[in-house]
Amino acid sequence: MFNALLGRDKTFYELFEKAAANNVDAADALNDFLSKFPASIPDGVKKMKDIEHKGDLITHETIEMLNKTFVTPLDREDIYHLITRMDDIVDLMDGAVSRLALYKIDKITPEAIALGQILKNATEILRHTITGIRNIKNPTEIIRHCIQIHTYENEGDQLMQKALADLFENDKNDPIKVIKWKEIYYDLETATDRCEDVANIIEGIVLKYA
Amino acid sequence: MFNALLGRDKTFYELFEKAAANNVDAADALNDFLSKFPASIPDGVKKMKDIEHKGDLITHETIEMLNKTFVTPLDREDIYHLITRMDDIVDLMDGAVSRLALYKIDKITPEAIALGQILKNATEILRHTITGIRNIKNPTEIIRHCIQIHTYENEGDQLMQKALADLFENDKNDPIKVIKWKEIYYDLETATDRCEDVANIIEGIVLKYA
Amino acid sequence: MFNALLGRDKTFYELFEKAAANNVDAADALNDFLSKFPASIPDGVKKMKDIEHKGDLITHETIEMLNKTFVTPLDREDIYHLITRMDDIVDLMDGAVSRLALYKIDKITPEAIALGQILKNATEILRHTITGIRNIKNPTEIIRHCIQIHTYENEGDQLMQKALADLFENDKNDPIKVIKWKEIYYDLETATDRCEDVANIIEGIVLKYA
Repeated sequence: MFNALLGRDKTFYELFEKAAANNVDAADALNDFLSKFPASIPDGVKKMKDIEHKGDLITHETIEMLNKTFVTPLDREDIYHLITRMDDIVDLMDGAVSRLALYKIDKITPEAIALGQILKNATEILRHTITGIRNIKNPTEIIRHCIQIHTYENEGDQLMQKALADLFENDKNDPIKVIKWKEIYYDLETATDRCEDVANIIEGIVLKYA
Repeated sequence: MFNALLGRDKTFYELFEKAAANNVDAADALNDFLSKFPASIPDGVKKMKDIEHKGDLITHETIEMLNKTFVTPLDREDIYHLITRMDDIVDLMDGAVSRLALYKIDKITPEAIALGQILKNATEILRHTITGIRNIKNPTEIIRHCIQIHTYENEGDQLMQKALADLFENDKNDPIKVIKWKEIYYDLETATDRCEDVANIIEGIVLKYA
Repeated sequence: MFNALLGRDKTFYELFEKAAANNVDAADALNDFLSKFPASIPDGVKKMKDIEHKGDLITHETIEMLNKTFVTPLDREDIYHLITRMDDIVDLMDGAVSRLALYKIDKITPEAIALGQILKNATEILRHTITGIRNIKNPTEIIRHCIQIHTYENEGDQLMQKALADLFENDKNDPIKVIKWKEIYYDLETATDRCEDVANIIEGIVLKYA
């Protein structure tokens, strides 16, 4: 019985690690898509959609396990929020890629490239940090990583604010372009917000269990 | 005492069923409003506002009961999320109807009609499914219904993406029109998202209690 | 031990009161910024950013205490939602002020002034009401205050709807201006929504503990 419970616990952590690795894959696919745009249409869109679908399956498996498990290794709410926020990250990157293709954008902006790089850095740190919560040996390092994610989120925020102000300034004669890019930047910037949400949940877990 | 508790339980289910039936009424009012637009202004706006107000009362009654009840028939969190997400559905349909009147839209689009039909189908299934959680005899059928709602949400999503791309393409000389419709589609599509949220909560309940 | 627990409890309430007072400061800074605009750039932006940062610190301190405290004076979820929703209020006011400066808005609208006044009234009532939950002597008065906040939220909603419709009507030749103001109104109106969220949480607490 005790082994069965341990087995289950191990699996929750495995699912978190799978989701975190999938988010890094999504960030790689996003950066690849952006750097080769528009030649990356339609293959890059298809590739991102596959990653997004894989994220859905991991999330679904986690929630199903949560609903069937009586004793969980972390608070139920933490498990639920961790996995759904991680899923949001890949959904938003997929949203940005879909929009870039669908809205017939002709040229990628430097700000989109910069946001893609921030997402790569943030998802890499999250992958590293998620592994750490399985056995909290080094809370100080985990907290330090979480603070790094906050810094990335701040950078993302400022990039987006600046990009919007530039759009308003430089493309005032093309409001449709402004509307399109506003939606794309929103997806990318909200993805960095969700990375921060995940970091906040991890910080909370570390403070509770360390 | 035991009867009193059972009585309370019954009432939670009754309130869920009332809210679900109210959402079907809202979807009917929405479709009626769209099919007779713009002649449906102002009567259709008033009618939808009444339905929205009724939804508020049902939600308020449920939360008040939740706060007063010690032993609840379902997890407190599930009750709270079920009733507030159901309330969001009617709020968003009301938002779309208000905007259509307020923004002086001259003609309804086929995509708005299609989204209205999806909402009618989704709220009908939710009403049927909500009745099923009172006495979970047929979990397989409930899960099958929930999967159907996911399909509707996907259709809604694709419709909205397509409608936006069309707007950007065909109305590039009327950005104000683009902005207005973006807001209206957003309300309708988010209403289908909330139907999916409700389906997810029901799936979770069925997995826990079946 | 018992004193220590009481001490902790007292501190949660103190943090809520600090956050509520900080929100009133934010509303004052917002109204001051609006009334002196554009001369209030950049000092008013800086001042609001300091208040926003103070809000972050209060929120962080509360969550850290929540994660370290075993027995809490209110449900953990209520504490978490209370403090994060209160933080949203100042974040959104800060967002509106930043955008007004960044987007090179030339003139403040009467609707923005009116929304600023609503936020002042709503945050004042919240400050008063938050003090009341420390020792729930007068639940009727607290509930009456919460209802007042709902009224303010409704006013905010209608103001925003009206302001948007006016923008669409009067500035149809300047879609960039429409987009900019839509974002600013959205921040201000969502801040009144968050005041209502806080009022709802307080109502729930009063119903549970009174």
